[in-house]
Formats: sequence, structure tokens, C-alpha cells
Amino acid sequence: MPASRLVATYRIRTDADSIDERARAIALEQSVEAPLAAIRDKTVLSDIVGEVRRIVDRGDAFEVEIALAAATIGGDAGQLLNMLFGNTSLHDDVTLAAIDLPEDLVAAFQGPSHGLNGLRRRVEAGARPLTASALKPQGLPPDALAALAHDLALGGLDFVKDDHGLANQAFSAFEARVPACAAALRAAQRVTGRPTRYVPSLSGDRAAMERQIALARGEGVDTFLIAPAIAGPSTLQALRRAHPDLAFLAHPTLTGARVAPDVYARLFRLFGADASIFPNYGGRFGYSEATCGEIADALRESWFDLKASAPVPAGGMSPKRVPEMLDFYGPDVILLIGGALLAEPRENLVAETSAFVRAVGALQHGAAHV
Amino acid sequence: MPASRLVATYRIRTDADSIDERARAIALEQSVEAPLAAIRDKTVLSDIVGEVRRIVDRGDAFEVEIALAAATIGGDAGQLLNMLFGNTSLHDDVTLAAIDLPEDLVAAFQGPSHGLNGLRRRVEAGARPLTASALKPQGLPPDALAALAHDLALGGLDFVKDDHGLANQAFSAFEARVPACAAALRAAQRVTGRPTRYVPSLSGDRAAMERQIALARGEGVDTFLIAPAIAGPSTLQALRRAHPDLAFLAHPTLTGARVAPDVYARLFRLFGADASIFPNYGGRFGYSEATCGEIADALRESWFDLKASAPVPAGGMSPKRVPEMLDFYGPDVILLIGGALLAEPRENLVAETSAFVRAVGALQHGAAHV
Repeated sequence: MPASRLVATYRIRTDADSIDERARAIALEQSVEAPLAAIRDKTVLSDIVGEVRRIVDRGDAFEVEIALAAATIGGDAGQLLNMLFGNTSLHDDVTLAAIDLPEDLVAAFQGPSHGLNGLRRRVEAGARPLTASALKPQGLPPDALAALAHDLALGGLDFVKDDHGLANQAFSAFEARVPACAAALRAAQRVTGRPTRYVPSLSGDRAAMERQIALARGEGVDTFLIAPAIAGPSTLQALRRAHPDLAFLAHPTLTGARVAPDVYARLFRLFGADASIFPNYGGRFGYSEATCGEIADALRESWFDLKASAPVPAGGMSPKRVPEMLDFYGPDVILLIGGALLAEPRENLVAETSAFVRAVGALQHGAAHV
Repeated sequence: MPASRLVATYRIRTDADSIDERARAIALEQSVEAPLAAIRDKTVLSDIVGEVRRIVDRGDAFEVEIALAAATIGGDAGQLLNMLFGNTSLHDDVTLAAIDLPEDLVAAFQGPSHGLNGLRRRVEAGARPLTASALKPQGLPPDALAALAHDLALGGLDFVKDDHGLANQAFSAFEARVPACAAALRAAQRVTGRPTRYVPSLSGDRAAMERQIALARGEGVDTFLIAPAIAGPSTLQALRRAHPDLAFLAHPTLTGARVAPDVYARLFRLFGADASIFPNYGGRFGYSEATCGEIADALRESWFDLKASAPVPAGGMSPKRVPEMLDFYGPDVILLIGGALLAEPRENLVAETSAFVRAVGALQHGAAHV
């Protein structure tokens, strides 16, 4: 039986004279990391050394497909990223453009425990789009963040998440912030009757995160924010495995290397993200509509047995963009509006949030036709 | 007392008309991540919001210095990277060019437990340059890797490290590979009398790494390879704190984003790397002499109370480059030659390794004058 292979597609900006050699060098770098002369074992030569499958001239760059042995991954998320792009990331003229993983490799991971529809059930949302906002700015003490959380939840949101800059700082330590915000959401829930979820941000290493999770569980929290490119992809993988009852939102911070955004989104889904945040087009970041469409596809399209992750377009969104975003993404989405709500006069926060939530609810049927 | 600030220098490729606005946007993005209108708290405005300190036109790009509050870091390695470059990494036209950290922030980390001179004492090397090689290719079974380790150690090296592609794969599981290689080095040591260190590669999340460390400790291993950009910088920080008797070599895989290589090297030292591998100029990667000099400076120069880390230039080096490398780096260096030794006919491996080790020993005094 031939060894199972994954296929990585690299874009290389080089000239036609050197592309063959560059492609062969990447095939070695991302597999045995040694000159071919140093490979004497026949099984290594046939089953482990990377294979150049295809080179396509795209005009501005060459696209090179390289088949890598699935056996080199050992079922570890970090090692998958290491084999896909680790040392090759050190070449400025190469990007990782696409990945195609075989079924046995995908099966070694678990994907989301809950996924988009599990998140919907959790907040009793039926089939409608979901809504979220973020607690910010960092620097506020726990009681101020809790007051914001309370009013955002009164507005009827599904998720109120920590900003990804909230870690375990002295001005708002996790052990003070999380009980305060969780209590604020319980109080709001008694008014609204809605099961709004508070989503605290995990930071530090796996052991620190386990302490944070244990504390937050005591407050009824079952959904967490994690930044896999900072925490390490293996940390997300381990948390998802250890806590199948919890849901995880992935944050894209530090993913802006030279890996295509939809590749990162696909990997985060593979490693267990139930939802994945990304910069929407026309916001603070320069992502195009095409890129955002590819990210949403990577999160939602059928992929062996994995559940769909929820796309969470964000980054400078405002309530007036709700109709356009639902047109673009359809109803299988979480709309995240942070700063634009918080920039409203403080006394209007509940009303503005509520208007955002109603707009999403009102438009859901129209959007479902897209 | 004014709040303690770190200064991040970004290079932005944009036009003169937009640079002021771009600089202000990054100052917000990397601190409060919200429009200024959403910031009502006076302390947050004065102590937390990022400040644009300086904008310099360098011709091909603008250099922008932004002062960020040290209080936002909370003493966590991952959060430091998050605040330095997290969301801004998503802008294709920005790189993180330099960092300047205040003493209180540096003191919140520990730096290397042993550093360059601790590594020298460990291998009884006096003041000479150190030598290392790598076990490869992945795909070989444990006994084949152990046989290579044995012969490399017979050649008199100071360190024999796992290739960074060796994780916990079925063909060479950590629990089989590490005892086999450690035993091979003990056998070689009985012949050479040298305390050559085996340096296994850690993979997975913190919990997996703790299991690997416990197993390897049982085999007398006290030095480990870790890839902080994949494991997560907080994982290195936590391991260094939990195991002050162990030494850690950092591997640069996946660092090739848009962070200057010497910034990563400095951060790895800060988080506890006793030595740091990087691609030498003139090898398989495109780093310049200037870049390599900056990396070596970041690892070795005086930096508050932190020990120096050992620079480990690598990536396609060969024994014939030893004189030139010792001229360039001086004696405070670990020379790592992997593939070039392994590409020699197998029966010559001990002799070639021994010649490499002798060349380093013979040249140490000359190099010390540089």
C-alpha cells in the first residue's frame, strides 16, 4: 500500500530557471531536512521524502504542489504546521497557499466538538445567524468590564467575549475578571431570559489554561477564546480532547505570516475550533471579499466527518453592515461587532446592541435564501 | 510615576499621506483594540493606549516607534508576542523590526537558566566554541538513529540533537527513540570520556512535553530542543520556570513571518532559551551576514541581568566553513553541522565528525582574537 500523503501547495516567486531546484529543495526541507545523499534507507526514500507533484506557472509566481508523508505528523497539530511550513517559512519568497489532507490524517484529529450548530443549540438560536461582541478596552478593572458585559447581554447578544488582549494582567486578573463578568451575565439573563454566553480569553501555557478553565467552569462558563498561533496549535488540540463539553472560538492574532488565511482557518477547524474569528473585508484589515469567502468555505464546507466551524467575520464591523454581511455569508455565521457598539454613548449601549440583535433576527430569512 | 512602556518599531510600506493615520491605528490595535471614542477611562487613556513616539522616513518604508504599556503583558510570553505584533501581523505591509523592553518587563521573565557558559560547563568545554550535529532523516527507526548518534558522539561532538522534524511519530516514537539514543551516547562516552549531550526534540502541548521530559530525565537527559513558535512561547517560559536544571535549545521553525529574526532571537533568550538555532548566511536560507550578526548580538549582548544565549548558526553548513564561521562569530558559538556530515559515506562518519571537532578546537584561540 502506498504511504498516505498530504499535499501542500506553495507559491514561490522565483525565475523559471531555478523553480525545479527550488521545488526539490522544499520537498527535502519539509520532509527529511537533509541532502538526498544523506538518505540511504529505502523506506525513507520511498515513503518519507517529499515528492514534487506539479509545478504551475501563474505569471507572478509558481505554484508547486508537494506531497508529504502523513506518517511524519504523528497526530500532533504543531507537528502538522511544522511539516507544512516550518523551515520553509524562513524563505521570504515562499507562501503556503493551500493544503489537501488525506482522510486518515484528518481522522487523527477531531475537529470541533460542537461546531456551528452546537453553538446554536447552546444559545437556543434555531437556524438564525448568531451575534457577538467583545469586552474592551484592556486596562479597565473587572467591575467596569462586568458592567459592559451586563449591558451587552441585556441587548440580547448570543456571545460576549473577552477581547483577545485580555490575558492575566494585574489590572484585570483572570480570577477577578471571570467571576465578575459571569455574574453580570447571569444577572442579565434573569432579565432577558436568553442564555447569553460569556467567552473568556485563555492565556499562558496549557497548565495555566487548565487552571483558568477550572475556575471558569465553577462560574458556569462553557465557551472559551483561544489564539492558536500564540498558544500553540497543540494546546488547542489538547484542550479540545480533554474537554469535549467545552466550545472554543479561535482568534487569528499572529497568523499573518505567509500562510494563506483560509489554510489557517481550515487548520483551526481541524484542531477543534467551534468558531473562528477573521478580519472581514472592508474593515480595519486588508482582506478581500474573495479571501473572506475562502475562509468561510474552509470553515463550513463538507470535510470528511468534521463538524462545520462557525465563521466569525470581525474587525471594524458596525450594525449598519448587518444586511450586507448576511447577504454575503448567509445565515451560518456569527456576526461580531465590538468597538462600534462600545463607541456609542455609554447610556445607549443596551439600545444599540439590541438594535444590532434585532437586525440580525429580522434579516435571517432573507439571508437564508442566498 | 509614569507607566512603564516597551517600544516596538514597525516598518510600514505606505505613502507619506497615510503614515500618520496608519501609525495611530497600529498604536490602538496593539493596545486597546478599539476606536479612541470607545475609551472613556482616564487611566486607560493615559497609561494603556499605545503612543506613537517617532516616525522616520527610510525611503523604502517608514519606521514607526510605538510605546506600549508593560502592564498589558501580565508577565506572559505569549501575551508579549500578542501585544507586539498579534493583529498587526494581519497587515501585509507591516513588519516588526525591533523591540526595546524596560527593565521591569525583562525582570518579569527569567532568560536562560544556564546560557552559553552554563552549556560550556555542562560539556566541560572551557572557553572554546561548541560543536553539535543533528539526527536525521526522520523516517529512520530508533535503532538506526541511535547508531548515528553513537558515531557522531564517537567523533567527539558536544551536542547531538534530534532533527526538529522528529516528534512522536510511529516510525520513531519518543519513548523508543530517546532511551535508544541516550544509551548509544552513554556507550560512546565510555570510549571518548566526553560528556556529549543528547538533545531530544519536544513536541505537542505542555502536558505532552512534561511526559517526554520525565521519560528523558530517567535516561540522564538534561538538554532539550523546543520550537517556541510552534509550541507557543508561553510553553517555553513555563518549562524553563518548572525545570531550572534543564537547558533548552530553541529552533526557529515557523518564525519566518514578518518579525525580524533578531527580534525572535531576543525573545527566545528572554523566555529562557540557553541556545538558539538560526540559518547561517551562505547556507540553505537567504539570511545575510548583517542579519546573522544582529541575531548573534541579540543573543549575546549585555541585557540587564539575563545570561547570554549561545548562537547556533546552522542550515547547510559544512566542516570546511569552520574557520570562516569562527572568524565571524568568535568563540562564543555552537557550530551545528548536520546533513553535510551525514552525507559522507557512512563508514567515514566518525572520522569526518572527529575532523570537524578538531578543527573547532584548533581554531579557538585565533577566533578568540576577533
